[in-house]
Amino acid sequence: MIIGANPTIDDGVKLGYRTGRKIADHTLRIGDDACIRFGSVIYGGTIIGNKFATGHNVTIREENVIGDGFNVWNCTTIDYGCKIGSGVKIHCNCYVAQFTVIEDNAFMAPGVTIANDIHPGCEHSADCMKGPHIETGVQIGVNVTLLPFIRIGAHSVIGSGAVVTKDIPAGSVVVGNPGRVICSIHDLKCQTGLTDQPYAHVLLHGSVDLEQNGR
Amino acid sequence: MIIGANPTIDDGVKLGYRTGRKIADHTLRIGDDACIRFGSVIYGGTIIGNKFATGHNVTIREENVIGDGFNVWNCTTIDYGCKIGSGVKIHCNCYVAQFTVIEDNAFMAPGVTIANDIHPGCEHSADCMKGPHIETGVQIGVNVTLLPFIRIGAHSVIGSGAVVTKDIPAGSVVVGNPGRVICSIHDLKCQTGLTDQPYAHVLLHGSVDLEQNGR
Amino acid sequence: MIIGANPTIDDGVKLGYRTGRKIADHTLRIGDDACIRFGSVIYGGTIIGNKFATGHNVTIREENVIGDGFNVWNCTTIDYGCKIGSGVKIHCNCYVAQFTVIEDNAFMAPGVTIANDIHPGCEHSADCMKGPHIETGVQIGVNVTLLPFIRIGAHSVIGSGAVVTKDIPAGSVVVGNPGRVICSIHDLKCQTGLTDQPYAHVLLHGSVDLEQNGR
Repeated sequence: MIIGANPTIDDGVKLGYRTGRKIADHTLRIGDDACIRFGSVIYGGTIIGNKFATGHNVTIREENVIGDGFNVWNCTTIDYGCKIGSGVKIHCNCYVAQFTVIEDNAFMAPGVTIANDIHPGCEHSADCMKGPHIETGVQIGVNVTLLPFIRIGAHSVIGSGAVVTKDIPAGSVVVGNPGRVICSIHDLKCQTGLTDQPYAHVLLHGSVDLEQNGR
Repeated sequence: MIIGANPTIDDGVKLGYRTGRKIADHTLRIGDDACIRFGSVIYGGTIIGNKFATGHNVTIREENVIGDGFNVWNCTTIDYGCKIGSGVKIHCNCYVAQFTVIEDNAFMAPGVTIANDIHPGCEHSADCMKGPHIETGVQIGVNVTLLPFIRIGAHSVIGSGAVVTKDIPAGSVVVGNPGRVICSIHDLKCQTGLTDQPYAHVLLHGSVDLEQNGR
Repeated sequence: MIIGANPTIDDGVKLGYRTGRKIADHTLRIGDDACIRFGSVIYGGTIIGNKFATGHNVTIREENVIGDGFNVWNCTTIDYGCKIGSGVKIHCNCYVAQFTVIEDNAFMAPGVTIANDIHPGCEHSADCMKGPHIETGVQIGVNVTLLPFIRIGAHSVIGSGAVVTKDIPAGSVVVGNPGRVICSIHDLKCQTGLTDQPYAHVLLHGSVDLEQNGR
C-alpha cells in the first residue's frame, strides 16, 4: 500500500482490501491529500491520483485507474477494471459497472446506475461485459440508468430518471425512458435569472457544435 | 453533543462527525428515546427531535432541522440544510438533496432520489440549488425521482418509478416518466377487499378536495 | 447463532443482530463456507444455506429463509420475511421488500427496488403487504422497479429501468415505464457475435415455450 502525503483517513476504513479475483498486483496506490471517510473500503490493486475524497460506506474495487480530484460519495460502488479521468465526481448511491470508462470532469448525480451485461444469464456473458464510455464533461442526473456498450458524447446532459439505451452525440440533452435527445445543451435556458444559457461556457467540438454555429 | 434521555446507540456509530464546511455551530442535538444503529453517521450541527430511529449505514449531514419521530433506514443519505417535519419516514437507499423541505408525516419508499440542481455543471449552480418542497402526508413510491424546485401538494401519492418534473396539486396520484397526474387519491380503490377507498380517511383542503365534494 | 464449517468473517461485521420485532426464534443459522464482508449486518432469526457470500454494508433482516449459494452485494437490504431459493444473486444497492418470494437462480442487477405496499399510508397497509413472486431464473436489469403482488414468470428478462406493474408470462422480455412485454427471450439476438441466441439454452415450459415451438 502506497499512500501519498498528507492523508486524512478515518478509523473504520479498510484500505488495500484483498479481492478474491486473481490479479497481478494487489498494491493500492493513492496520491497526496486523500480524505477517506468512515465506513469506506478501497481494494488493493487500484491506482488513484491526488486529492481523492470519499463519503461514507463507499466501495472501490480492484484494477481501477483513477485520476486526480476524484470525489465519490456515500454508498457508491466502483466495480473493478474501470478507467476514470481527473476531476470526476460521483455522488451517493451510484453503481459503476466493471470496465466502464469515464473521462475528465464528468459528473454523476445520486442513484446513477450503470449496466455492463446486455444479456444477463447468457452463457457468454462474462466474455462480452463492457460498461458505457462517458466522455469529458458529461453531466448525468439523479436515478439515471445507462446501458452497456453505449458512448455518451462530451458535455451531454442526461436528465433525471432517463434510461439511456444508445449512443448520444456530444452536447445533447436526453430525457425519458427510453432516453431520447430533445435538444442541444446550448438550447437550454436558465430558469432562475442568473444567466441566459447555463452551458454557454461549454465549447463543443464536432457535429453538435457545428450545428449550433450554423444557426 | 447533546443527546436526550434513554438513547440506544450501537457501537460502530459516529455521532457529531465534523463537516468540512464552515458552519456556525457544530453541536449535534438529538431528543429523547433515540435509537441509532450500527454503521450510521450523524454530523454535528444538526437538530433532531424525540423518538429518532435509524437503520444501518445511514448518513445525516449538518444543518438539518428535523422533528419528532423521524425514521430513516439503511444506506440513506440526508444531505445538509434540509427542513424535515415530525412523523416523517424515509426508507432504504434514498437520497435527500440539500435544501429539501419535507412536511409532517410524509413517507418515502426505498430508492427515492431527490435532485436540487436543475443544470449541473452550470457555473451558477451553487447559487440556485434548491430541493423540492414535499407537503404534509405525501406518499412517495419506490425508485421515484423528484426534480428541483417542485412542490408536491399535501397527501399526494407518487407511484413507483415516477419522475416528477413539475408542481403537483394536493391529493393527486402521479405515475410515469415524465410523471403525470392520473386521478385524485379519492379515486383509488382497494384491491384486496380490506376497505373501499384506501385514502378515505384523508381530508384534503383546497381544489382537489372541493372537486371531490362536488362530484 | 449457528455457523457452519469454514466461514470467512471480516471484522466490522454484526451477526445475529436482534430485531425489535417480536419473533419466535432469534437464532441465526448459516451453512458451510460463508464469506461475510466488512460492514455487513445479518439479523438473528434468519436461515441461510451453504456458500453464502456478501459484499460490504449489506443488511439481511430476520425471518428470511434463504437457500444455498446466495450472493448479495454492497449496500443491499433484504427486509424480513422473504423466501429466497438457491443460486440467487442480488447485486449492489438493491432493496428486497418484506414477504418477497424469489425462486432459484434468479438474478437482480444493481439498483433493483421492490415494493410491497400498493397504497402506502392506507390504514390497512400492514394487513395487505406482499412483495412480488419472482420465478426461477428471472433476470432483472439495473434500476428496475417491481410493484407489489405481481408474479414474474420463469426466465423472463426485465430490461434496465423498467417499472413492472403487472404479471409477466414466463420467458418474456419487458421494457419501459410502465413495463410492457416486447417479445420472448428466444427472439433476442446476440449483438457481439458470441452466439446466435443468448437464451437458447433456456427451456421454457408453458405458453411462451409452446408458442416458440409452434413457430
